[in-house]
Amino acid sequence: MDNRPALGVGMVGYAFMGRVHSQAWRGVSAIFDLPVRPVMTALGGRSAEKAAAAAARLGWASVETDWRRIVERDDIAIVDICTPGDSHAEIAIAALDAGKHVLCEKPLANTVAEAEAMAEAARRAAAKGVRAMVAFNYRRVPAVALARRYVAEGRLGEIRHVRAQYLQDWIVDPEFPLVWRLQKEKAGSGALGDIGAHIIDLAQYITGQRLTGVSALTETFIKERPLAEESSGLAGESRTGAKGPVTVDDAALFIGRFDGGALGSFEATRFATGRKNALRIEVNGSLGSLAFDFEAMNELWFCDATEPDAGFRRILATEPHHPYAGAWWPPGHGLGYEHTFVHEVKDFLEAIATGTDPSPSFEDGLQVQRVLAAVEESAANGSRWTDL
Amino acid sequence: MDNRPALGVGMVGYAFMGRVHSQAWRGVSAIFDLPVRPVMTALGGRSAEKAAAAAARLGWASVETDWRRIVERDDIAIVDICTPGDSHAEIAIAALDAGKHVLCEKPLANTVAEAEAMAEAARRAAAKGVRAMVAFNYRRVPAVALARRYVAEGRLGEIRHVRAQYLQDWIVDPEFPLVWRLQKEKAGSGALGDIGAHIIDLAQYITGQRLTGVSALTETFIKERPLAEESSGLAGESRTGAKGPVTVDDAALFIGRFDGGALGSFEATRFATGRKNALRIEVNGSLGSLAFDFEAMNELWFCDATEPDAGFRRILATEPHHPYAGAWWPPGHGLGYEHTFVHEVKDFLEAIATGTDPSPSFEDGLQVQRVLAAVEESAANGSRWTDL
Amino acid sequence: MDNRPALGVGMVGYAFMGRVHSQAWRGVSAIFDLPVRPVMTALGGRSAEKAAAAAARLGWASVETDWRRIVERDDIAIVDICTPGDSHAEIAIAALDAGKHVLCEKPLANTVAEAEAMAEAARRAAAKGVRAMVAFNYRRVPAVALARRYVAEGRLGEIRHVRAQYLQDWIVDPEFPLVWRLQKEKAGSGALGDIGAHIIDLAQYITGQRLTGVSALTETFIKERPLAEESSGLAGESRTGAKGPVTVDDAALFIGRFDGGALGSFEATRFATGRKNALRIEVNGSLGSLAFDFEAMNELWFCDATEPDAGFRRILATEPHHPYAGAWWPPGHGLGYEHTFVHEVKDFLEAIATGTDPSPSFEDGLQVQRVLAAVEESAANGSRWTDL
Amino acid sequence: MDNRPALGVGMVGYAFMGRVHSQAWRGVSAIFDLPVRPVMTALGGRSAEKAAAAAARLGWASVETDWRRIVERDDIAIVDICTPGDSHAEIAIAALDAGKHVLCEKPLANTVAEAEAMAEAARRAAAKGVRAMVAFNYRRVPAVALARRYVAEGRLGEIRHVRAQYLQDWIVDPEFPLVWRLQKEKAGSGALGDIGAHIIDLAQYITGQRLTGVSALTETFIKERPLAEESSGLAGESRTGAKGPVTVDDAALFIGRFDGGALGSFEATRFATGRKNALRIEVNGSLGSLAFDFEAMNELWFCDATEPDAGFRRILATEPHHPYAGAWWPPGHGLGYEHTFVHEVKDFLEAIATGTDPSPSFEDGLQVQRVLAAVEESAANGSRWTDL
Repeated sequence: MDNRPALGVGMVGYAFMGRVHSQAWRGVSAIFDLPVRPVMTALGGRSAEKAAAAAARLGWASVETDWRRIVERDDIAIVDICTPGDSHAEIAIAALDAGKHVLCEKPLANTVAEAEAMAEAARRAAAKGVRAMVAFNYRRVPAVALARRYVAEGRLGEIRHVRAQYLQDWIVDPEFPLVWRLQKEKAGSGALGDIGAHIIDLAQYITGQRLTGVSALTETFIKERPLAEESSGLAGESRTGAKGPVTVDDAALFIGRFDGGALGSFEATRFATGRKNALRIEVNGSLGSLAFDFEAMNELWFCDATEPDAGFRRILATEPHHPYAGAWWPPGHGLGYEHTFVHEVKDFLEAIATGTDPSPSFEDGLQVQRVLAAVEESAANGSRWTDL
Repeated sequence: MDNRPALGVGMVGYAFMGRVHSQAWRGVSAIFDLPVRPVMTALGGRSAEKAAAAAARLGWASVETDWRRIVERDDIAIVDICTPGDSHAEIAIAALDAGKHVLCEKPLANTVAEAEAMAEAARRAAAKGVRAMVAFNYRRVPAVALARRYVAEGRLGEIRHVRAQYLQDWIVDPEFPLVWRLQKEKAGSGALGDIGAHIIDLAQYITGQRLTGVSALTETFIKERPLAEESSGLAGESRTGAKGPVTVDDAALFIGRFDGGALGSFEATRFATGRKNALRIEVNGSLGSLAFDFEAMNELWFCDATEPDAGFRRILATEPHHPYAGAWWPPGHGLGYEHTFVHEVKDFLEAIATGTDPSPSFEDGLQVQRVLAAVEESAANGSRWTDL
Repeated sequence: MDNRPALGVGMVGYAFMGRVHSQAWRGVSAIFDLPVRPVMTALGGRSAEKAAAAAARLGWASVETDWRRIVERDDIAIVDICTPGDSHAEIAIAALDAGKHVLCEKPLANTVAEAEAMAEAARRAAAKGVRAMVAFNYRRVPAVALARRYVAEGRLGEIRHVRAQYLQDWIVDPEFPLVWRLQKEKAGSGALGDIGAHIIDLAQYITGQRLTGVSALTETFIKERPLAEESSGLAGESRTGAKGPVTVDDAALFIGRFDGGALGSFEATRFATGRKNALRIEVNGSLGSLAFDFEAMNELWFCDATEPDAGFRRILATEPHHPYAGAWWPPGHGLGYEHTFVHEVKDFLEAIATGTDPSPSFEDGLQVQRVLAAVEESAANGSRWTDL
Repeated sequence: MDNRPALGVGMVGYAFMGRVHSQAWRGVSAIFDLPVRPVMTALGGRSAEKAAAAAARLGWASVETDWRRIVERDDIAIVDICTPGDSHAEIAIAALDAGKHVLCEKPLANTVAEAEAMAEAARRAAAKGVRAMVAFNYRRVPAVALARRYVAEGRLGEIRHVRAQYLQDWIVDPEFPLVWRLQKEKAGSGALGDIGAHIIDLAQYITGQRLTGVSALTETFIKERPLAEESSGLAGESRTGAKGPVTVDDAALFIGRFDGGALGSFEATRFATGRKNALRIEVNGSLGSLAFDFEAMNELWFCDATEPDAGFRRILATEPHHPYAGAWWPPGHGLGYEHTFVHEVKDFLEAIATGTDPSPSFEDGLQVQRVLAAVEESAANGSRWTDL
């Protein structure tokens, strides 16, 4: 008999992010001892037919074609938002105001104004015991969480440098179509918000420092692309010879300063040919350094300069005492991308059950949004230094 | 409405292997389009209480404390054997004779005689459309399946060398207890059967060649270990100061020849300090080479010597056209250990649905068993060359 | 009988750079078939005693305590300048005007004005058949020269990204003394001119593009250091407890644009704990990518995205057809740091012998100097975009 | 004034090995403070014309066409033997008996009998203060010498495993000609003696243990090759369509036991496509592990299992306190293949000057020869275990 309280989950959106979140909701209870029991109650999507097919496949018990129904249903306690950024604010605020806990995909919003409203809604909700979390899943890579632990323990000393890159190459081909991620009104920005947001969040999370100012440049290498039939996923299909303008950045580079004195170098691009999902971060401190690359996500490289013959050592973050890792398999039997979402959902459920604020909060998401806005402002003004 | 035929699955054993298999049965349908629908019908375990807890957690609908009930139940079409090797033969033969499809963990058995009886049972069953498969899961790493594809396409030319190692270090500490994997009557052999079996299978699978003879040595570095309270899992706990003899090998090394003319060098050990799950294989051919290390399981290293400035290149086996990978996430968003079992279950279900013999068959498992026996025989006779 | 014309070489300075250059002058003729024969005629240094000891050890036939004598001597055809940057201009201009070929260490000078005067002197000299070259030795790493060849052949397509880092850690310790490289009047700048100059040159050399503007920041983490007894080398020794101000940058970061449309991200630092001499450059183009790290200097990583299953491949740049490599050892028998200078000297001697302008020219050195100045200007003006 | 005693060196042979040794003799004094001064007195070669050209290029003062003259000359104190293995014994014994110090290339000889006679001559000579050393140059890679230091200091604990491979691919092409290294009467054996000898020596050197028995197999993949015009170097040129038999092994594999209880796995091959000079060795002990690959020769990988979050760390063996490294360049400015010979010559000269026996001695060379013979005997007898 499972006496744990059940929490109904309603998820809005079922494209790439929705598929991964479903894996997490479905699998989390088999791996982690949770104080509550998530139930995959409803999937929200505009097309009843497509949503039903997705729900059947992904394990959702029912379907709603209007996200407002998800927000209203009494059997739903958690709303999981997996839609493009232009709808985050409306759904999240409505859900929070309706007393639903909210997990929202990143970036939190498409504008700072939206993000501010969302953070405000989260504050109101928190006062009533309702929780909100933004889904920066990469914090939940065990190697990344271990990196954070090292910095927090002081093993790196004073942090001097952060260099972070998120390198992909899926739109190098100029014939790749104009999917929604390349449209400003849908996605807010391009590489910057989609993947740049991750490295901004990770840099701040790992170091415990916040960016105070940036100087940036952005570029759109391919100005026009074939129109896509479908615009709700990573892949698309061109129907005709017609083209449309790419209205977001293909790449964003910036340098910046952190409030603890560190310098930062950031680069997010979808034009790094041969790099598939190379989220990389290196942190140099006075006592040691850390390096991580998501393409080898089970590895954390750590240099402890206080030991003789120091060098970067490859720690497989799969030991029982490593974050999250003990719940899984024996050492060396690595995890994959989707498991970062399992960890995310686990932490979110625990926060709800224990009545604590989950992290990263909407406030954290807002702060990242401000960095994104500062980067865009700087880039639009000849790389002018832009304070945060 | 899901009109696909349902296939009830009964799994025996719920330790490490049972947990991983459960992940696969639970998750496979969300990722792959299957012609049948697996149902997690029953979990078998001797302790009703423990089995019930495991079933609740892992998602099994019912529990049986006698595996014979699993074999008998009408609502079970597939028996999945996740017990130690000493019970494989009895369960598998009974299940096959009862018309159940069988997925059996590796090594197939603890002796060649058992494996022969199992292969014979599989032949009888196949004649009646009942399928049997041995669970060499590492064949289902996308990078490994891609390696096989390359060799089959002739891209390596004539194969000259295979060097395969399976390196772990979980029993380096002499205080690590005498768990069942260190007891011959339970496990059959030590590193040899547990992990050596995998590299033997992989070497033969990737090259398409079979070993024809070996010269071997084995060693037990730590002769006695503290008795373990529990002996059904990787971890154990010593109760008293009492010790018992380790009756299996800690390490097994052998050299051999393949029927296609290649030379092989093999090493399986649990004493490679710092190597956690380093299943490595390198294949050198007249036109190219391949290298793989499970500790970086999403990478296949390929050298095409027919191109100028050849070198080993790191292929992230996460592209849509790579084996299994297209069903998952975008390129670079890697998979983990458990997903090899998802692929295994998927292939097994497809074989059942399409009425074809799954691979690796029990015959393949028997052949690996013969290699294991030849290695032990050679080692017991001063490394004498032992033909297969 | 060696009928090749002899060319007397006079080298000024015998610290780190002088030692390495001596290796090159002494060894080049044994490896390469040169049309001329360099003779190690004279070593210049202020202390007669120390210079004599260095000359004996390093293989120089005589000693001069005034560099002007080196410039004047009839038996000297080549002047090799290995002094700190503050003396480059004076020596180089005098030597060129005296009709001596000049090899000058980088950065070319400490200011743009000096560099302009030097480039002007080089132009005057060239008209008389006298050659001048700036010693960006890393161009002569075989892997780097191979990278340039690939870009020139179009194998990368249109260049989109350059990310270059030069990471060292030799002054992380605040007790490391105030050597000349940390003093602006001697060194001109810190990490920027010392190692940043190299990655600026390499980025432009490999891509064939020039930077058109930058936005930069610099930082001096440790503001004061113990005074060093000696200030002419990398190492130093503190005499008393007295401290002096560090007047150069510890780290310099900048982003920029190239005239061919590429974006650049640059970082030079002496505070990357655990990185010893990590000169790294990655170039992404529309058809492929390249990556290099001097800490593994015999390797070039190349991704040819036009082939199926593309990935970065590790080319050991030690094949007979690779730049410089054919003159040395069999494939895989790698070279070291000093050999980049052997190649430099070889190319310089060939340029002299064949009456062609060597590369990188003083004009190239001046252009790098302008980038260094733009970086400093931008950093001094709140990262303001600074055109070149 | 250089008051150090001069020691004339006479080198026999000027192909690949002679070229590298010349680099060492010419350069050693500029890097290391030596108590003696080597003088490159005479080069021995059968063709007066070719030897003279080589001497001019490589820096030898005179030429002898009969090696006996080298042995006799009063101005020669050291004889350096760089000829194929069939002439080692005759030259070395004559030189030692004539009171010359001898540095002899590896393998020491082509047979155990020859090696025994050489070791006997070395013993006789040692009694008279005459030194003999066999040129296992890879011991002088700083990373390898550091590995030895770690084991000697007990940092690895009890050694359990050695896995050593020397992988090359220069004769994969069946049209590569029948050079002297493929002829038993010249070379003694193939991959076994040429490169296998190195890993045997390194395994024993690093662990401080000696092999006590082996089980082996060897193979010649390509039985016939085009005749080469010239047979004294790695490269050759086929003159006609005629072919001749390859009389040595292309690959040799063996497993063995060490006197300290470790197990060894060895593989030497010239058919590892894509591996150029991959001399690799990994050592696993009860407290830690080491790994090395000559293709990245400046790196030693060390895992200290006594520290939490252990992992293999990449030590750049270029620090001042690392073996040999302090005499060269700053950290991270790596060395190359030829520098191992500089170190070898340095150690040899110091042994001569200080009247100590250099290492590895001819006795060490003889012991390796015995291992080579045991490998061949085992391989010839169906991999029969062969004691040493």
